[in-house]
Amino acid sequence: MKQFEGYKYIDGGICAAQGFRASGVYCGIKRAMTPDGNESPLGNEKNDLALLVSDTECSTAAVYTQNKVKGAPILVMKEHLAATGGKAKAMIANSKNANTCNADGVEKAKAMCALAAQQLGIDEKLVMVMSTGVIGQILPIEPIEKAMPELCGKLSANGGREAALAIMTTDTFPKEVAVEFTLDGKTCHLGGMAKGSGMIHPNMATTLNCITTDAAISPEMLQKALSDVVKVTYNCLSVDGDQSTNDTCMVMASGMAGNAEITSDGADYDTFRQALYIVMMNMTRLLAKDGEGASKLLDCTVSGAADIDTAIIVAKSVICSPLFKCAMFGSDANWGRILCAVGYAPAEFDINKVDVTLASKAGSIDVCKDGSGIPFSEEIAKEILLEDEIQILISIGDGEGTATAWGCDLTYDYVKINGDYRS
Amino acid sequence: MKQFEGYKYIDGGICAAQGFRASGVYCGIKRAMTPDGNESPLGNEKNDLALLVSDTECSTAAVYTQNKVKGAPILVMKEHLAATGGKAKAMIANSKNANTCNADGVEKAKAMCALAAQQLGIDEKLVMVMSTGVIGQILPIEPIEKAMPELCGKLSANGGREAALAIMTTDTFPKEVAVEFTLDGKTCHLGGMAKGSGMIHPNMATTLNCITTDAAISPEMLQKALSDVVKVTYNCLSVDGDQSTNDTCMVMASGMAGNAEITSDGADYDTFRQALYIVMMNMTRLLAKDGEGASKLLDCTVSGAADIDTAIIVAKSVICSPLFKCAMFGSDANWGRILCAVGYAPAEFDINKVDVTLASKAGSIDVCKDGSGIPFSEEIAKEILLEDEIQILISIGDGEGTATAWGCDLTYDYVKINGDYRS
Repeated sequence: MKQFEGYKYIDGGICAAQGFRASGVYCGIKRAMTPDGNESPLGNEKNDLALLVSDTECSTAAVYTQNKVKGAPILVMKEHLAATGGKAKAMIANSKNANTCNADGVEKAKAMCALAAQQLGIDEKLVMVMSTGVIGQILPIEPIEKAMPELCGKLSANGGREAALAIMTTDTFPKEVAVEFTLDGKTCHLGGMAKGSGMIHPNMATTLNCITTDAAISPEMLQKALSDVVKVTYNCLSVDGDQSTNDTCMVMASGMAGNAEITSDGADYDTFRQALYIVMMNMTRLLAKDGEGASKLLDCTVSGAADIDTAIIVAKSVICSPLFKCAMFGSDANWGRILCAVGYAPAEFDINKVDVTLASKAGSIDVCKDGSGIPFSEEIAKEILLEDEIQILISIGDGEGTATAWGCDLTYDYVKINGDYRS
Repeated sequence: MKQFEGYKYIDGGICAAQGFRASGVYCGIKRAMTPDGNESPLGNEKNDLALLVSDTECSTAAVYTQNKVKGAPILVMKEHLAATGGKAKAMIANSKNANTCNADGVEKAKAMCALAAQQLGIDEKLVMVMSTGVIGQILPIEPIEKAMPELCGKLSANGGREAALAIMTTDTFPKEVAVEFTLDGKTCHLGGMAKGSGMIHPNMATTLNCITTDAAISPEMLQKALSDVVKVTYNCLSVDGDQSTNDTCMVMASGMAGNAEITSDGADYDTFRQALYIVMMNMTRLLAKDGEGASKLLDCTVSGAADIDTAIIVAKSVICSPLFKCAMFGSDANWGRILCAVGYAPAEFDINKVDVTLASKAGSIDVCKDGSGIPFSEEIAKEILLEDEIQILISIGDGEGTATAWGCDLTYDYVKINGDYRS
């Protein structure tokens, strides 16, 4: 992990910050859903229900998918945050069922909030809700109701990992990142959890992401920081080009660190935003690395663009190309596919000024200069591409704009996982 | 194949029209290109060089990829058509090398035209040129030069198939369609050949396509018909979302049928455009069916849109979704992925009015009504989806706009083919 001065990586995920407790349990949402009404032979007892609670009322901000089809939990979160003016105290989340495209979706999402609120003795409007899993199947509320006492009983300041496990779908590992930093002379913490790993595409918040901090910051400045950072982190991630219906990224700030509340731009805001960037950027990398079926993390940095937006567009275009992704799976230095994807990016630049370099911890090699191929050693290129983290460095001119997009290779396993996801 | 009154399917491809002769040979472009300079152990003697010649000077129209990276042959075709005012007499094409992103690309493309012109005794500006294959490797001109006498010697009115074979890359079968129809009391013919099958995406002409006709039509009206028809055929096709650098679709009209030349809108123009539509629509289906690694042809028709453009955008969004494509590979009626892709289409409509039906020759089944799931038999859905041609019928409202987009499933073989395309 890249080091940043003044920030220290720590453990704990969503419980790294003071005043947060979390838990995760198996309640059997998937088992209850089997189409023929019987218990699924594939049923397992992996966590499928998570709860997060804060000792204090938190400034809360969120960003959501831009898909017209929005999961019912998103509609309920928006309603609750509007009602409270950007405050929340808890979050309940489930996997195995997206609660999307169901006629009773909003009712069920509200029922989840109400169950948590009742158990915690708080107003249900202070409860956030997230769901992920199959679209268009009725969410059974009974297993959630039945599990609530256990879920609340297990709440713990060490429960971040159990919660992170509970929001996983096809993820192969839980994703948690946290940092410690100083604001106004006070030690602060900011950490989060995320789930991937398919249906991930730029221009949205990307999948389920929950971040907590004990720094004090107003809801407005928290929303501003989140919107800024999501643009250059989650929104620069693509696993498969499919924009999910349920993507949500929320941040809760408890203020328990005791710093003077951040209410405007300035040095404190910059310090806070950088902490948020470090956590979200690292989670973005984890999401890319664990993309469905992925064997390689791909990291494309475009420099020399007229502005950052142009750099983002070109970097995303490369990261989203299925042909490029397949070539990376095969460790094939087929740079023509990179140039092809650069060429169809909807942005303005001179294709005859494009240089391409491939790099990994095994070294780096120039493969294209001024838009044309140059001689290079296929052997060295192969060595570089056999690594599991590959950088594609693209210069498109003399401008100042630089950006990175993250993705993964396209493999047999992606097809396997998605050829029969529901069973 | 769908039947259209007044049009009869015939054999012959690009030689179905009077006055055209074609040929295809193996000249060894790939063998000569092996990186270490030796003959490739994978070398085979499949055709890699095609020639088409007309007895008369033809009205000629073309459309090209919108990628900023354009193959050198496209630059040369544009130059030649501008110089002749939309006239051509011959076309030379090669596979195994795209002649793109090479410093000497234009020089080599012109050399191909010059070789053909010399052998045929015509002005080299009357020669069109196309290349397809790997990007960024120098095109060896020697094998082409050496093969010219044989290529010209084999020219024949029955040579369409040999030419169609010579432009194939990862295609598993040659693609030819032709129709006979009547214009101005004269029997006319219009036929073509196409090559797929990866790096195919909407908003371009799609891969190499060459169409000939003996109908008489001005270059301007020919270009108009081509631009109109490409919008609802090739531009509604996606195999993998990658927009190629070399896509070209050209039409040559010899006028040998003897009809009064079409120089303006009217009944004759409509009859001609319909012939072009029938051939291009059927070639689009063949390209989708032979998409890299494809096991199923997918055909998504959107109706009820405010206008055709909206219908096209939504249909393409579904056809391009990797998750939907994987589900079709697995014959999994995971309609939530269809609705998800409808939802992220950049168009205006009410997601709560969306209905989805799955169909094939095994039957049809409604799976989604007014944006929500409805109960359906998974067994019957499976039977429908086990067929190799699937229709996805989507209604998005009460409008008059209808359009179809074509694609294919995403399979292990797509990854296999593209993981090591160059070897």
